Amino acid sequence: MLRSHTCGQLRISDVNTSVTLCGWVQKSHNLGGITFIDLRDRYGITQLAFNMDWDKSLCEQARSLGREFVLQVKGTVIERESKNKNIATGEIEIKVSELLILNQAITPPFTIEDETDGGDELRMKYRYLDLRRNAVRKNLELRHRMAIETRNYLDKQQFLEVETPVLIKSTPEGARDFVVPSRMNQNQFYALPQSPQTFKQLLMVSGFDRYYQIVKCFRDEDLRADRQPEFTQIDCEMSFVEQEDILQTFEGLTRHLFKSVKGIDIPTLPRMTYADAMKNYGNDKPDTRFEMKLIQLNSAENNMVGGKNFKVFDEAETVLAICATGAAEYTRKQLDELTEWVKRPQLGATGLVYARVNADGTVKSSVDKFYSEEDLKKWVTCCNAKPGDLILVLAGAEEKTRKAASELRLEIGTRLGLRDKNKFSALWVVDFPLLEWNEGDPNLPESLRGRWVAKHHPFTSPKPEDIDLLKTNPGAVRANAYDIVINGVEVGGGSIRIFNKDLQATMFSVLGFTKGEAQKQFGFLMNAFEFGAPPHGGIAFGFDRLCSLFGGADSIRDFIAFPKNNSGRDMMIDAPGEISLEQLNELSIATK
Amino acid sequence: MLRSHTCGQLRISDVNTSVTLCGWVQKSHNLGGITFIDLRDRYGITQLAFNMDWDKSLCEQARSLGREFVLQVKGTVIERESKNKNIATGEIEIKVSELLILNQAITPPFTIEDETDGGDELRMKYRYLDLRRNAVRKNLELRHRMAIETRNYLDKQQFLEVETPVLIKSTPEGARDFVVPSRMNQNQFYALPQSPQTFKQLLMVSGFDRYYQIVKCFRDEDLRADRQPEFTQIDCEMSFVEQEDILQTFEGLTRHLFKSVKGIDIPTLPRMTYADAMKNYGNDKPDTRFEMKLIQLNSAENNMVGGKNFKVFDEAETVLAICATGAAEYTRKQLDELTEWVKRPQLGATGLVYARVNADGTVKSSVDKFYSEEDLKKWVTCCNAKPGDLILVLAGAEEKTRKAASELRLEIGTRLGLRDKNKFSALWVVDFPLLEWNEGDPNLPESLRGRWVAKHHPFTSPKPEDIDLLKTNPGAVRANAYDIVINGVEVGGGSIRIFNKDLQATMFSVLGFTKGEAQKQFGFLMNAFEFGAPPHGGIAFGFDRLCSLFGGADSIRDFIAFPKNNSGRDMMIDAPGEISLEQLNELSIATK
Repeated sequence: MLRSHTCGQLRISDVNTSVTLCGWVQKSHNLGGITFIDLRDRYGITQLAFNMDWDKSLCEQARSLGREFVLQVKGTVIERESKNKNIATGEIEIKVSELLILNQAITPPFTIEDETDGGDELRMKYRYLDLRRNAVRKNLELRHRMAIETRNYLDKQQFLEVETPVLIKSTPEGARDFVVPSRMNQNQFYALPQSPQTFKQLLMVSGFDRYYQIVKCFRDEDLRADRQPEFTQIDCEMSFVEQEDILQTFEGLTRHLFKSVKGIDIPTLPRMTYADAMKNYGNDKPDTRFEMKLIQLNSAENNMVGGKNFKVFDEAETVLAICATGAAEYTRKQLDELTEWVKRPQLGATGLVYARVNADGTVKSSVDKFYSEEDLKKWVTCCNAKPGDLILVLAGAEEKTRKAASELRLEIGTRLGLRDKNKFSALWVVDFPLLEWNEGDPNLPESLRGRWVAKHHPFTSPKPEDIDLLKTNPGAVRANAYDIVINGVEVGGGSIRIFNKDLQATMFSVLGFTKGEAQKQFGFLMNAFEFGAPPHGGIAFGFDRLCSLFGGADSIRDFIAFPKNNSGRDMMIDAPGEISLEQLNELSIATK
Repeated sequence: MLRSHTCGQLRISDVNTSVTLCGWVQKSHNLGGITFIDLRDRYGITQLAFNMDWDKSLCEQARSLGREFVLQVKGTVIERESKNKNIATGEIEIKVSELLILNQAITPPFTIEDETDGGDELRMKYRYLDLRRNAVRKNLELRHRMAIETRNYLDKQQFLEVETPVLIKSTPEGARDFVVPSRMNQNQFYALPQSPQTFKQLLMVSGFDRYYQIVKCFRDEDLRADRQPEFTQIDCEMSFVEQEDILQTFEGLTRHLFKSVKGIDIPTLPRMTYADAMKNYGNDKPDTRFEMKLIQLNSAENNMVGGKNFKVFDEAETVLAICATGAAEYTRKQLDELTEWVKRPQLGATGLVYARVNADGTVKSSVDKFYSEEDLKKWVTCCNAKPGDLILVLAGAEEKTRKAASELRLEIGTRLGLRDKNKFSALWVVDFPLLEWNEGDPNLPESLRGRWVAKHHPFTSPKPEDIDLLKTNPGAVRANAYDIVINGVEVGGGSIRIFNKDLQATMFSVLGFTKGEAQKQFGFLMNAFEFGAPPHGGIAFGFDRLCSLFGGADSIRDFIAFPKNNSGRDMMIDAPGEISLEQLNELSIATK
């Protein structure tokens, strides 16, 4: 080794030890006759000391070093005069006796500090320098730890990691595939997997019983913010299980990760039905770090807003309130701004009604013209609002209003500081609908338009007690499907699969497939099922997202070593790029 | 869980326990009033017992079950009358009280046994059934264990697993890339990585210090037997190290894998220079499970064959002998057959000379006409041959003859049973040549033809003491490059990289690149190196091959869950396949 210790290793107990360190020049200080250099490696920073009195030429050499030069130094550990409590090596420094410049460095385009002056584009272009920053490297160290702990947990539970192929076949369902022209099979293409779904179900048919894989998946989608064309999943499947077994197993994984990676004991995960999540949070991935449930003010049983000549509420399908704790002192300006916020096209609310609960218990609302103090007191009771709270009300069509109320709830939660990134609230959302109605392309003739589509995928099993509804009321059928939600983020989801041929046939018929179409699109898996498929189910976690959540970050990008930008480009290597005519010819394809 | 125990779990101590098992019908026996069914899952086989006296209808139901039906049974563990010592559950059986057919199965196209009647093609088409076979599943269980132990070892050594991108950029050097048309960047293509070489070197520039990844790589090659278009590497890189550190670290990994996966303590790995490997074995990946070194009979210092009027040896550049221990009794027919074997076009030898050392010490050769007993005794001494041994001699041009002698040595080793798959002999081959002479396309004008090419890759560092030779005698320059070889298989290889700009420039000039060409092809990494690259080096292990070696198999195919055939096709999912015109149009490409 070119070093005896790392730059994060030496302590006061090492004083007088002769050491050799290697690393990068983080910064240097010249203080008259003394020069200090912070030498950095992955493990930390160690201060190097040079003194004109000790060795003039060495000190002068030290003064000539630029930022990010790569050094090897030999010297002796000495106690530092002014100690630095902020770093682990802060009590010592190295009295350098030899200095070797292993490599020079030109000046980096941005500072290699936790808070850098590099913008996003510059950081991505010079990602190899960006990765030198402590903050970014720590994210990837966390990711490594998450992967190791995931594997060790699942290995102990008898799961086998099996690598499924990357060069597979394009399927018409789902998102757009990336394809790979085959040179040896002309005019044919491989596709990159959007998930190993088929293969993991086949492994269950093979009797593998418990499978997992931390695996790259690919989707050629128009990239929304914080989506990547290649992303990583923890992909799992189990046989001879019911939904409860999967929930227990992967709740176990989640708790193990929190404990082993973050040292946090999280409580048993509550279960919430999809219906309750939508009712109380307007969202199938509720952020349960805070309450602030949506309260319906115009329910059939208890309509607290109707018949008071306030047309907006009278005509609304849904009137929803949330109670912002302690927000009664919001100024008129703040409320106006919030009103503008809910009126943005993304939310599309027509307005925002408020009711302040004053310190003395009186209520002041923006609709006092229509509602008496007594009327408003009912709102207060229903919302369990206290003096000092602010009730905010949205009204309109059900779906849109509930979605807007959900967004408003999250926004208020953020503004009130209720969404602490170091606090974690995890839960299962269960009993998802099996199907959802797809309006279809409005340009198509009506006969071809509306149809039921699988909410999860066509192999998801309905709840046994709801199977009879498949033919009479498909929209009411609940699935054995589940999501794991942490802090309002869906970090994983899965389902129990259909393994019975007749039920699968019914499902296809509900989805509007003829037998021929079903065979063409899914025949391959259905044929495998003929040879004795066991009951099975699984789950997949979004690993990039899970890591960013554990790291307390909003974006996944800094938890991926070499991410792509929103146009799917790797700015660093400048990919994709053109290929040669010779390559195109060999593949028998042409660009247009 | 649908079961209380697995089919491999129950023992005599469990007698009288009520259990629920799930699994597949392996086979059934009807013996008069009694029926036995072997129920199989991943963990083993448990015998189910049915008796007409206990329960007539249950017993009749049991008799109706076909092979590979999926069952759930409840019953009581009882002691077996005739015990089966061959399986772990062989002392017990289940007195079944309830039987539920979870799924039916049509008859599989081949038997699900260790020795199956399915041919290769059928097995690949129904790979999900092939994977049910114990023998195949055990291979993948071994692979899982190898991956877990690799990760745990490297994790303990502070290596970070970092995922590098799969969608990268096509590079003109090396093998053919698979490419992926980009929809969002028209007329541009991603490439799938042949290895993460550039990225791991960039991670070293980033200060990651110790990186590894078990990673899929891709090569669009015409597939030779036992090559796969997608394959898996254990890819590693370290900073601030010298060659010795890498050898130590990965010898440690290799020993750890042998110990933890196979329970074998392998000895310290010997080091062999490339020159010695070629001299003694005619091969840079010698199988050292057995000696039988190549002996040159016509070396300048000691020419034991020249000047005896045997033209074949007199005119030969190289005359090589091997001593086949105990093979003196090979019949004339066997020797003729061996002669035909070495004359095959793949080896291209012109003939095979032999000399038998008889029990009485006399020597009988096929060239007695030219060589006296005394002459032949010299061969015997030189080859250290004993009575009963057979000396085989090949002669011709150096390169071809040494290669043929190497192949002959392996063939004889196999015939003599010296290549036991359960015996392991590992070593490092070091001091590879940095460069090799490439004759080039003979159709090109001579000025464009011959040039030096990098044996490993253009970033491989020459040995410091050989740098001066770069300009005077490039062919003699040795590289800081090394391979790890086990049982004649190169399971891994790597090098110390060049990190000094001037040395890199010299290297490119030796390789015949202009500055412009070097910048165009490798500019990206060279630019990164401007910002302070540390000394670094690495290694990559072929994971599929390593697993098959540990599993004692010749082919990697059964250590890959879903392999492709020699035309790059996945026979099971029938990939690659055609894609729709709509897809082609979106990608702005056309097939020709």
